[in-house]
Amino acid sequence: MDARISALQKEAASRSDVIGLAGGLPADELMPKEDLGRALAYVATRRDEALQYGWPEGTRQLRGWIASRLARRNATIDPERIIITAGAQQALSIAAASLKHHAIETGDATYPGALDAFRGVGATIRAHGNPATGDARYVTAGVEMPRGVAVDCRHALAGSAPLIVDEAYAELRFDGTTPAPLIADAPDRVWHVGTISKTIAPGLRVGWLIPPSAHHDAALELKSAADLHTASICQAALSRLLTTTLDYDALVARARSAYAERADRMVTALRRHAPSLSFDEPAGGFSIWIETDDHRDEMEFLAHALDEGVMVDPGSLFRPDPAAQSGLAFRLSFSNAPIDRIDEGIARVVRALRPTTTATAAVAQAAGTR
Amino acid sequence: MDARISALQKEAASRSDVIGLAGGLPADELMPKEDLGRALAYVATRRDEALQYGWPEGTRQLRGWIASRLARRNATIDPERIIITAGAQQALSIAAASLKHHAIETGDATYPGALDAFRGVGATIRAHGNPATGDARYVTAGVEMPRGVAVDCRHALAGSAPLIVDEAYAELRFDGTTPAPLIADAPDRVWHVGTISKTIAPGLRVGWLIPPSAHHDAALELKSAADLHTASICQAALSRLLTTTLDYDALVARARSAYAERADRMVTALRRHAPSLSFDEPAGGFSIWIETDDHRDEMEFLAHALDEGVMVDPGSLFRPDPAAQSGLAFRLSFSNAPIDRIDEGIARVVRALRPTTTATAAVAQAAGTR
Repeated sequence: MDARISALQKEAASRSDVIGLAGGLPADELMPKEDLGRALAYVATRRDEALQYGWPEGTRQLRGWIASRLARRNATIDPERIIITAGAQQALSIAAASLKHHAIETGDATYPGALDAFRGVGATIRAHGNPATGDARYVTAGVEMPRGVAVDCRHALAGSAPLIVDEAYAELRFDGTTPAPLIADAPDRVWHVGTISKTIAPGLRVGWLIPPSAHHDAALELKSAADLHTASICQAALSRLLTTTLDYDALVARARSAYAERADRMVTALRRHAPSLSFDEPAGGFSIWIETDDHRDEMEFLAHALDEGVMVDPGSLFRPDPAAQSGLAFRLSFSNAPIDRIDEGIARVVRALRPTTTATAAVAQAAGTR
Repeated sequence: MDARISALQKEAASRSDVIGLAGGLPADELMPKEDLGRALAYVATRRDEALQYGWPEGTRQLRGWIASRLARRNATIDPERIIITAGAQQALSIAAASLKHHAIETGDATYPGALDAFRGVGATIRAHGNPATGDARYVTAGVEMPRGVAVDCRHALAGSAPLIVDEAYAELRFDGTTPAPLIADAPDRVWHVGTISKTIAPGLRVGWLIPPSAHHDAALELKSAADLHTASICQAALSRLLTTTLDYDALVARARSAYAERADRMVTALRRHAPSLSFDEPAGGFSIWIETDDHRDEMEFLAHALDEGVMVDPGSLFRPDPAAQSGLAFRLSFSNAPIDRIDEGIARVVRALRPTTTATAAVAQAAGTR
């Protein structure tokens, strides 16, 4: 990430007066803190393996739970194929390293971490619309990132190219439906990526990768070379949580409902404060994606937003080719802002969007009333 | 790792009758379980940031602790230079990716994870004795891996090549001395690697990398692309542990003393059961390294060892060029075997070392008495 963007985001995160619409963070209050705290304490004190070295593929118990959830979605996966990773990000970085001799087709805006992973291994990235034969593809299944629209991504199965399927938000569609996992249709070329970061807690850094069987051993070598294995304490606590006190389906249902309510607040606020802005109403996930015809400098806009007391994710982060971005774009996350601050957050974004001279006046005016 | 070695080690780990002298695991009973359990539960329930996404470089608190420990060893390091990693392994893999255009000189036997990290990025690895100009070097400072001898590695500072300094065992010399960190002498070319895996708990997967300042930003990009950041829960719990209940110096002193006692038991057992074997008495760390003139097949030896009810780490894992290994070699870890089983463990190793026909007879005999 551009060091200037990073610096602004850190400043924003450190200021209690700033409304945070950046980052795609799950809501603090939806995480099962008490249950997790108990599970962590239990396994730390009662299970030697929770503090000890483990095997690179992760624990059998956690891999079994993942396989059982996929089975309920009609994908029969041998748990031996599953590799527990440090979040979906590490799954993407291992898939990227495995596929680095392919160009990877991503769409014209996608998850920034995937772009980082692909760039990190030196892969060529192609934007949507022109995948060449042999290109690999990356899709965010269920809920498309960053647009928040519902997709099943079955079109991506066309052809015979390798396909990285990122299910980070797949279970967070507001209508409660979850499309069938693509890995069931093309197990020999789908790299399936999942995580508990959006539902339980990202701070555990637990995700998973299911590579095609022919690539499993090489992918496992990459995992082992990367960090030996995913934190034993996190795997053990998660397993305990999932097999004792936590009803995961109920947790996901509560999350869907809570995020749908926040999404609705943000949609309403956008229509009120900026009726001319067009955007897709989110069908799931954490965010709304805005593209404008405004040609102002992105950093200038971010600085104005911070002056107004709000932070968003700049669109360039999501672009395979940031220089080709035609107009100002940004992502607004409703997921971890206090629900009663979303309207004010959007009002601040809209003030920051005003032409510069007006914005400066608005800053001066806002400063007087704070 | 060779899939056959991995399969044997997994079988060994699953059998309670097998004495485990493989793996270089810290002793379960030396880990501060109760304190860690309390710290984990506290931060999970009271600190939102412990379950949330974090910054790629890690928490300021933990980086501050690392800097303060280095300062006590006369190395003044700005905490902003420190990157918290998923154990020393990830620090090595980031250093390797940053230095992949260099050949890396490692010595003729070294830490297998470092070899995996270097191979994983396609770096050329050179064994000791012939470093060319421009080669990078990798050293295990304080206690040399796998030989267990005391080294200060100051010789490695000669020249101007990049130097990866792995301090995983540096504080675990039995005499209580810790050499000055090399990063103090050559901050512009030392990649400093540290971890709490050998003293507190490897299952937390927390280590650190201090790259040369000129490489910091690129290394941080690699960290972010790899897994976004190290598990927040582990960083937060560690910080709480280190700033509240845990006296780290006292913990390290207890560990040194406990491992010295185990080392002494193993040395005594080797002299009793195999007086003709030569080896270096360990000055620290977790293991004894044995090299023999025996030309038997390594897998055959490992299988015999498992038949005898003991597991060790085969020497080929430690060799930059496994095919060039001249005689059977292996590493015996005293660190996590029950102290009262070390003598019997060595007796089993020595039986497995007997020529094949004798070993087979011994297996039959042992089977009758088990």
